[in-house]
Amino acid sequence: MISTTSFFAPVDEDLKILTQNLRNLIGARHPILAAAAEHLFSAGGKRIRPAIVLLVSRATLGEAEPTSRHRRLAEITEMIHTASLVHDDVVDEAQLRRNVPTVNSLFDNKIAVLAGDFLFAQSSWYLANLDNLEVVKLLSEVIRDFAEGEIQQGINLFDTSLSIESYLEKSYYKTASLIANSAKAAGVLSEVPREVCEHLYHYGRELGLAFQIVDDILDFTSDTEVLGKPAGSDLISGNITAPALYAMAENPYLEVLIERGFSGEGDLEKALSIIKESQGIEKSRELALGYGKSAVTHLTCLPSSPSTQALIDLVQYNFGRIY
Amino acid sequence: MISTTSFFAPVDEDLKILTQNLRNLIGARHPILAAAAEHLFSAGGKRIRPAIVLLVSRATLGEAEPTSRHRRLAEITEMIHTASLVHDDVVDEAQLRRNVPTVNSLFDNKIAVLAGDFLFAQSSWYLANLDNLEVVKLLSEVIRDFAEGEIQQGINLFDTSLSIESYLEKSYYKTASLIANSAKAAGVLSEVPREVCEHLYHYGRELGLAFQIVDDILDFTSDTEVLGKPAGSDLISGNITAPALYAMAENPYLEVLIERGFSGEGDLEKALSIIKESQGIEKSRELALGYGKSAVTHLTCLPSSPSTQALIDLVQYNFGRIY
Repeated sequence: MISTTSFFAPVDEDLKILTQNLRNLIGARHPILAAAAEHLFSAGGKRIRPAIVLLVSRATLGEAEPTSRHRRLAEITEMIHTASLVHDDVVDEAQLRRNVPTVNSLFDNKIAVLAGDFLFAQSSWYLANLDNLEVVKLLSEVIRDFAEGEIQQGINLFDTSLSIESYLEKSYYKTASLIANSAKAAGVLSEVPREVCEHLYHYGRELGLAFQIVDDILDFTSDTEVLGKPAGSDLISGNITAPALYAMAENPYLEVLIERGFSGEGDLEKALSIIKESQGIEKSRELALGYGKSAVTHLTCLPSSPSTQALIDLVQYNFGRIY
Repeated sequence: MISTTSFFAPVDEDLKILTQNLRNLIGARHPILAAAAEHLFSAGGKRIRPAIVLLVSRATLGEAEPTSRHRRLAEITEMIHTASLVHDDVVDEAQLRRNVPTVNSLFDNKIAVLAGDFLFAQSSWYLANLDNLEVVKLLSEVIRDFAEGEIQQGINLFDTSLSIESYLEKSYYKTASLIANSAKAAGVLSEVPREVCEHLYHYGRELGLAFQIVDDILDFTSDTEVLGKPAGSDLISGNITAPALYAMAENPYLEVLIERGFSGEGDLEKALSIIKESQGIEKSRELALGYGKSAVTHLTCLPSSPSTQALIDLVQYNFGRIY
């Protein structure tokens, strides 16, 4: 497995500063939150989202040092992402994330609700204080999309009539929106032309979708240890992702198994083997590849530089996870 | 008991529009959320917060119709308030609020977390789209203060060393901040002079503190039916408010009872009777009265009008609840 570190070389130092700042921003005053923050911000997160913001910042600033507002944007991005994970884990009753106990399992639901609210609240305060109304709008859109995505996912559990379009819409809300809008926001702070901002948005959107699809593939192809949560856990909880959607079209018996919530003996094993034997994984790969290729085309508006190259390499890194 | 309705006469029609708008803003797309929204926005809330925003709007606009942005601000205020109640009820495991089952008890914790997140997210999106950076900052401060207040309250449960200053600080965060900052924001939207905005902030702050203190008195003096939750429920859950703080200073035995979490037989009854027999209620009344008087002085900057008078009457209405 390829480490993300090499891709993030241009922003390695920036990410160290970010981690330190995040700890300082959250931890200072409340012992319980400090424990939760320490737990959250040292739990081996790959920091992909702030890394993208920092890479876009450098790429649009002619490789100059990111300003304090670019750095703050990267921090806000990670705070919003972390807040959404904390509340997701409450809603999904998840016990593990990245092999680390979730806040709700380590403390309890109350602390997890509070910690998530606190992170959302801090991030919206820091956001307002970036003093840029367009950036505020872009990121408040993200917060709204998170809530929308989580609700759509909740409503569609075990719904076998879900279309690939609805799956992609939900994936946009839950994953791509943050990457798209924060990449664009970094461009806005750098005051690049409007059309560059739009390309940055689309780079983030397509990359985000490709990331989500690859994650959804890995949920079927990886083992528990690599995944940091039980394999097939999305399907078990009724969250129907790309590989299952394609497999259902091929073998309608999968629909039956899902609709009865895997209540029969051996149902889950049967469902997982139907998916593995189908073209579902391969078709999902192709879907992700399409988004990845499209993401790269949106970077041609940037001057070549180590950071621009890193943004391109990130698309490759994503596919390295499944090839 | 005096109804709030008469005080809100200048904005009665505005509040009807607001209620309809809130239902439309939330309910349309998601059946579960629609049910939660219907439940939340018809649960007999007094709409005090949006009423204050609308009264300030009219008072600062020479009694002209509030603009759509003033109305939207009032809606945002109620959405933020409602979101915070929904998450508070999860954190406090509350079963009833205003005699109505809470979202977490009617549905479950998951739906309550989602519904609260959705309301916060919607409100921050509408907020950004008011296109006024100062208003965004004022309200994002409120969201941050809510999280801070809930955490402070959580940390200080059963802590008998709590000072009256810390109690007031927490009350500011949990109650007064929203009223203060939204009253000021209404003034900002009306483009009144800076010092009028500051007076509006202080009116809201002092009124909010007076409201919270009166609520805390009522928790001891009302019966369950009027209160819509069990009497003394703050104390039972370890939330030490003004009457208990003053009573402790008079009778240190109350401290012993609180510190052992009312674990002895009859501890709670004993505690409640110590508070009722002490000067705690009376001293709390005086504390609230002081804030109420101060609130009124901050309104002298406004031209007299039915709405200005209603803002003054609201201070009286608050005391009508305990006299």
